[in-house]
Amino acid sequence: MGKSAVTLKIGILGSGSGSNMVSIVDAIERGKLNAEVKVVLSDVRDAKILERAQQHRIPCQWIDCAPYRTKLDDQAEQRCVQILNAYEVDTVVLAGFMRIIKPGLLQAFPERIINIHPALLPAFPGIQAWKQALDYGAKLAGCTVHFVDQGTDTGPIIIQRSVPILPDDTYETLHARIQVEEHIAYPEALRLLAAGRLRINDRKVEILKESRGAP
Amino acid sequence: MGKSAVTLKIGILGSGSGSNMVSIVDAIERGKLNAEVKVVLSDVRDAKILERAQQHRIPCQWIDCAPYRTKLDDQAEQRCVQILNAYEVDTVVLAGFMRIIKPGLLQAFPERIINIHPALLPAFPGIQAWKQALDYGAKLAGCTVHFVDQGTDTGPIIIQRSVPILPDDTYETLHARIQVEEHIAYPEALRLLAAGRLRINDRKVEILKESRGAP
Repeated sequence: MGKSAVTLKIGILGSGSGSNMVSIVDAIERGKLNAEVKVVLSDVRDAKILERAQQHRIPCQWIDCAPYRTKLDDQAEQRCVQILNAYEVDTVVLAGFMRIIKPGLLQAFPERIINIHPALLPAFPGIQAWKQALDYGAKLAGCTVHFVDQGTDTGPIIIQRSVPILPDDTYETLHARIQVEEHIAYPEALRLLAAGRLRINDRKVEILKESRGAP
Repeated sequence: MGKSAVTLKIGILGSGSGSNMVSIVDAIERGKLNAEVKVVLSDVRDAKILERAQQHRIPCQWIDCAPYRTKLDDQAEQRCVQILNAYEVDTVVLAGFMRIIKPGLLQAFPERIINIHPALLPAFPGIQAWKQALDYGAKLAGCTVHFVDQGTDTGPIIIQRSVPILPDDTYETLHARIQVEEHIAYPEALRLLAAGRLRINDRKVEILKESRGAP
């Protein structure tokens, strides 16, 4: 990282609707993000993200993770790495992927696995962060795009965007407002990565200035 | 709370420059906040907040808290409560007060002690929160106005305002940017309190809609 612009070769892992995948694919199709989505993998057989990948003619596969419910066991992890390598993926994007990423995958893509979390980390790590924020009585919520490390939602932060929590908010209305920001933040973070403008120092992400003379 | 508009009778406790006190006094003097600052107390004999209180002709006193450095011991606490009561204070505002508030003061002003913290709580409680945020590598910082409870920076949140953390930020530049928002947030929170628009439910602060027919 920190070098000249490249075309990202992205592999997406997701468990749900794939709305973040769509925001990334849209940015690519509109010429706003210099990247290709090479493959989409899901641990949920009938996840909408697989259907949407097909609609965009992106190769996609279900990864059987049984019998585990929240982790990617060694065999499933190895299969993921093999497929991502077969598609020459250089950047792994987690888009609502509900399993814990273990060292095997982390080591296969060092500093190249990115996640988005629906809270202003380090506040509200873990599941259903928008519910945690509303229940806590916070007045600002938001989203965080970060590199993935061994911890849960602890990796170096690339971008954060905030949204207000409003008096009449329900879990659903707040989550929807956060998702609007996610769909801005994720393509933007990948754009910075593609432009070679991210450098990890210690655990902080330095955002380099745009180089004017770049090709 | 949650009733009709009142004139707040504020007692301010501070240890430092008193910039938040000035923002509150300014709001009162400009007719933006229906309140009076009845007395300013400081645990630091030569704190600038005392000097500034005198400039605004607000009664002020040094409270000797020796030999303790970070807590308000029972005697000093009792003296605070006596002085605040003597000035008929109904709302205690902590403005950079660097001591832990103990049950005696809390019980004397139930749900009427307010603090401002230079971070988006529950992220970065404790001291020098702007340093914590910069060192963590967060990309958003901010401030939180909250009711004080027994915990450290855990009380019900009234207002939060965010600021970006910029690539060239130092501790000083980030702190200064947060303070700009503090000086907006604190008078605004007190304005809501004075207007009877804050209600604590469980640990959440409900902000009531402006009642149109209010006197």
